[in-house]
Amino acid sequence: MTPFTLSPGQVAFVGAGPGDPELLTLKALRALAQADVVIHDRLISDEVLALAGPEARLIEAGKTGFGPAVTQEAINALMVEHADTGARVVRLKSGDPGVFGRLDEEIDALDEARIGWTIVPGLTSATAAVAGIGQSLTKRERNSAVRFVTGHDMKGYADHDWRALARPGEVAAIYMGKRAARFIQGRLLMHGADPETPVTVVENASRADERRLTATLSTLPAVIASSALDGPAILLLGLAPRAAQALTLTKQEVS
Amino acid sequence: MTPFTLSPGQVAFVGAGPGDPELLTLKALRALAQADVVIHDRLISDEVLALAGPEARLIEAGKTGFGPAVTQEAINALMVEHADTGARVVRLKSGDPGVFGRLDEEIDALDEARIGWTIVPGLTSATAAVAGIGQSLTKRERNSAVRFVTGHDMKGYADHDWRALARPGEVAAIYMGKRAARFIQGRLLMHGADPETPVTVVENASRADERRLTATLSTLPAVIASSALDGPAILLLGLAPRAAQALTLTKQEVS
Ligand SMILES: C[S@@+](CC[C@H](N)C(=O)[O-])C[C@H]1O[C@@H](n2cnc3c(N)ncnc32)[C@H](O)[C@@H]1O
Ligand SMILES: C[S@@+](CC[C@H](N)C(=O)[O-])C[C@H]1O[C@@H](n2cnc3c(N)ncnc32)[C@H](O)[C@@H]1O
Repeated sequence: MTPFTLSPGQVAFVGAGPGDPELLTLKALRALAQADVVIHDRLISDEVLALAGPEARLIEAGKTGFGPAVTQEAINALMVEHADTGARVVRLKSGDPGVFGRLDEEIDALDEARIGWTIVPGLTSATAAVAGIGQSLTKRERNSAVRFVTGHDMKGYADHDWRALARPGEVAAIYMGKRAARFIQGRLLMHGADPETPVTVVENASRADERRLTATLSTLPAVIASSALDGPAILLLGLAPRAAQALTLTKQEVS
Repeated sequence: MTPFTLSPGQVAFVGAGPGDPELLTLKALRALAQADVVIHDRLISDEVLALAGPEARLIEAGKTGFGPAVTQEAINALMVEHADTGARVVRLKSGDPGVFGRLDEEIDALDEARIGWTIVPGLTSATAAVAGIGQSLTKRERNSAVRFVTGHDMKGYADHDWRALARPGEVAAIYMGKRAARFIQGRLLMHGADPETPVTVVENASRADERRLTATLSTLPAVIASSALDGPAILLLGLAPRAAQALTLTKQEVS
């Protein structure tokens, strides 16, 4: 196949992965190197932004956890404006653009303006977080399905199929779940979850400052409250760090 | 951070992504370039295998859809044997090693043999398949959770929370679902799913021979039966290709 090429006047939605620049795909690297304009989320690490070409204009379209700081409309307008001047535009999103990334709203705006676009998928943070604790998202005889859920949506804390999530062996990666932790705990316990269900909180997955907090459903809110998390964090319901990992080499020693 | 280094006598479980070599991560590329031995699944494309160093020994540990052709024990023994000679071993798995990859069984074998390992996460095929049809796995006001499920497990066709999956707006990526399509259709309809629910089948996602079949729950088995799918395929329940995509540039024109 021919190498990825971003044409003038087009927008590439590019997944930046969870933060470690080595977890960018080759395609994402090429898109960044070719971009005239990079419109990026606040979560994107400086090391990743450094991969844009020296001439590229970097524009932060920061969104905070609860609702956008720059409005969605303003981001849409920025993309259209730059593509209309013939710029090669990269819209850089953390993780995978298709996972809790509000991608559809941005595509709709481009379609309306008749601007061409393409999607470069990226590594979603759950897969990096799980790899970091030596676990997998699915496992024979434990779970033949895994869920990615959000801790909050437009209406506040998000509601989910708590009864199903409360069953033994269920595995879910909860995005944007830090503030919702007490709510999630309450719902799951109410639906019969074992208070000893493991939950691992991974902050800054794949980055140099990655932190892993080991909790159970019963200790989760206290563990989070006492840990002063200030980076993005994912809650891994049903997973504890692989115990044996301590016996073998740690991630830091191997990589 | 220092570049990824694979040490002699260690095993790296490396996600190869869905097939397009441009969707490998930089870390996966480095692991492949450093490997003395690459033990890979049958699904890995030749273009990806070509990225291993010229001296690397490539060993196919082929598994077919229903049960292993090379036994899991034989694969475990291969990894241990090569790592014990001091080789740098890459265990290359399609997509992400932690998604339906039987990773835990292989890690257990290494732990038992006291061999160091690390996990290099990769792009799971669902994210590439969804990007290819211009959709996302989650969308505000449609679904605040997405599921990855398998069409079959050790006992045959896998059972799932069909009632929940049958609800309008649910999105699931069904791995290994080709042969189970009629079973899945039956279960979902029995639990009240709308027969018009869109299902897109993506074969060879991200590869030059990618094919996308548009179906609904009611037409799914017929569409699959008449399409002579012979590559790996994923069923995207609840997603149709983005209609507007036809009006704008197609993936082929943009990339
Ligand atoms: C708006 S969502 C975007 C998710 C992103 N598209 C993805 O695929 O990872 C932001 C949430 O992703 C999660 N997240 C993103 N990067 C992360 C990281 N490096 N470590 C842990 N969680 C992360 C956190 O839960 C954060 O609140
Ligand atoms: C044993 S599972 C391994 C999944 C892999 N670890 C991943 O994350 O994609 C094999 C299944 O993955 C899916 N798959 C793998 N590569 C694919 C591709 N390029 N296109 C579509 N489906 C794919 C198919 O459903 C296939 O039956």
